[in-house]
Amino acid sequence: MPKYMDIHKGVDGLTAEAIAGAHQKDLEIQERYGVKFLNYWFNEAGGTVFCLSEAPNKEAAEAVHREGHGLVADEIFEVQEGE
Amino acid sequence: MPKYMDIHKGVDGLTAEAIAGAHQKDLEIQERYGVKFLNYWFNEAGGTVFCLSEAPNKEAAEAVHREGHGLVADEIFEVQEGE
Repeated sequence: MPKYMDIHKGVDGLTAEAIAGAHQKDLEIQERYGVKFLNYWFNEAGGTVFCLSEAPNKEAAEAVHREGHGLVADEIFEVQEGE
Repeated sequence: MPKYMDIHKGVDGLTAEAIAGAHQKDLEIQERYGVKFLNYWFNEAGGTVFCLSEAPNKEAAEAVHREGHGLVADEIFEVQEGE
């Protein structure tokens, strides 16, 4: 299944706790879309978040964010992982 | 040690082989700067690369790229990893 890296920029009020809560919501509903969120990285001060997922397509990965918590990414890239 | 996610955009002629070679050069010299490159993800068509590293500071992570192969990132973010 393809992997996707998305980027959220300038997220207001980003805290480790808030993003963990949003990620948990993704995990709870991702199966509906055949998506598996693998990991995320964030910069609290700048409000930047990177999410790595496996998804059947870009739209499915976006749908999980939209339905889970409404914080859709600014950009999303299909990626291959280094070996 | 802090983690950093960097982004390279619009890399000309990006191929899986070329990026694997560049990553190998990072690995060969990273100890000089106390850096450990952990993984990378790339979109071949768009020339986008994400590199995840552990480094004592942002400048050290940048220095490895500069000395290793000269392809410095467009942006670099100190990040926390999701749990």
